[in-house]
Amino acid sequence: MKISELSERSGVPVATLKFYIREGMLPRGEAVSATRAEYGEEHLARLRLIAALADVRGLPLSRVREILNLVDAPVDDPIETLGRAVGALPPYVERDRDDHPRARAAIEELGLTYDAGFTAVAQLEEGLRALEHAGLDASPETLRRYSDAMRQVAASEIAPVAAMPLDEAIPYAVLGTALYEPVMLALRRLAHHDLLVKARDAG
Amino acid sequence: MKISELSERSGVPVATLKFYIREGMLPRGEAVSATRAEYGEEHLARLRLIAALADVRGLPLSRVREILNLVDAPVDDPIETLGRAVGALPPYVERDRDDHPRARAAIEELGLTYDAGFTAVAQLEEGLRALEHAGLDASPETLRRYSDAMRQVAASEIAPVAAMPLDEAIPYAVLGTALYEPVMLALRRLAHHDLLVKARDAG
Repeated sequence: MKISELSERSGVPVATLKFYIREGMLPRGEAVSATRAEYGEEHLARLRLIAALADVRGLPLSRVREILNLVDAPVDDPIETLGRAVGALPPYVERDRDDHPRARAAIEELGLTYDAGFTAVAQLEEGLRALEHAGLDASPETLRRYSDAMRQVAASEIAPVAAMPLDEAIPYAVLGTALYEPVMLALRRLAHHDLLVKARDAG
Repeated sequence: MKISELSERSGVPVATLKFYIREGMLPRGEAVSATRAEYGEEHLARLRLIAALADVRGLPLSRVREILNLVDAPVDDPIETLGRAVGALPPYVERDRDDHPRARAAIEELGLTYDAGFTAVAQLEEGLRALEHAGLDASPETLRRYSDAMRQVAASEIAPVAAMPLDEAIPYAVLGTALYEPVMLALRRLAHHDLLVKARDAG
């Protein structure tokens, strides 16, 4: 398809497409004449990934570029590549410290894998510190409740990823992490609301 | 305690405490002389709530104030009050439309309560639209997987709230919603990572 059709089908203005191409975020089309390039489904898929990260989740362009670079040039270890790509998603926490005492204790207690370089470890540390500061319960029993629910969710989420080649697995893992999060959190709030309404109506 | 001690114990500078008092976000201390006011544990609790919302979750001051106003002057219906308070938390989505076709269908399918005024309905709508646009699965079976996990989590979370008087239940529900979210999401990412690592080591 021509760039005008790519624009129409993706909803992205031609000027923005040209910006993405200049920035190396979108591959050039295949030149079919001196003045025309041809774009394909892979360009549409790339634009969906950019839109989900930049527009829906509001990632800064530098983070979107970091993820796209990993899609285009994965590092040697697939788990490391996936970890870095997902690590470019918010929340952004300080990462220049490598002691995560609360997270380390919780991860060991819960039987998960502790890897100080994996961003979610620092995110958990920050989350646990906030609970502690607010005086909320962060006991092993309470954390296990969340961890059990998340393991259950993660097990069904990870199944398709394991079967994919890495260049598909990275965008899928990033999109899946980024886009199911708000859905899951909305469902948690709806479950609270539903329980309160049903308790009132029963009382 | 004196304002200087309140500052020390809360970690909030005296100038900021005075700002909160002027803005009506923190109650005045009890005047014990013309130049001294006495502060108590309730002031510390209020400062913990403000810090969790403003510093940890990064809420704009207008949203923090909205929540504090509901704590101080709840509306008639407790569920409505809780809904408004939790609705002041991010993510902030457009709320001037009252059709939520995707969310409505999902909520009915999942057996939850549909209430167009409850912010999580609009948040779910936006989340489902993003999944659709990215070409990710939002089938009833997939949503049920998240919903089941969230119901399970919510049931144990809601138990203490139901037993509290409203002026305690509001800050508790707001803090609990805001501060367990990042912990739960970090645990989801850690569960993904753990499953990939274990599958690699077993393979």
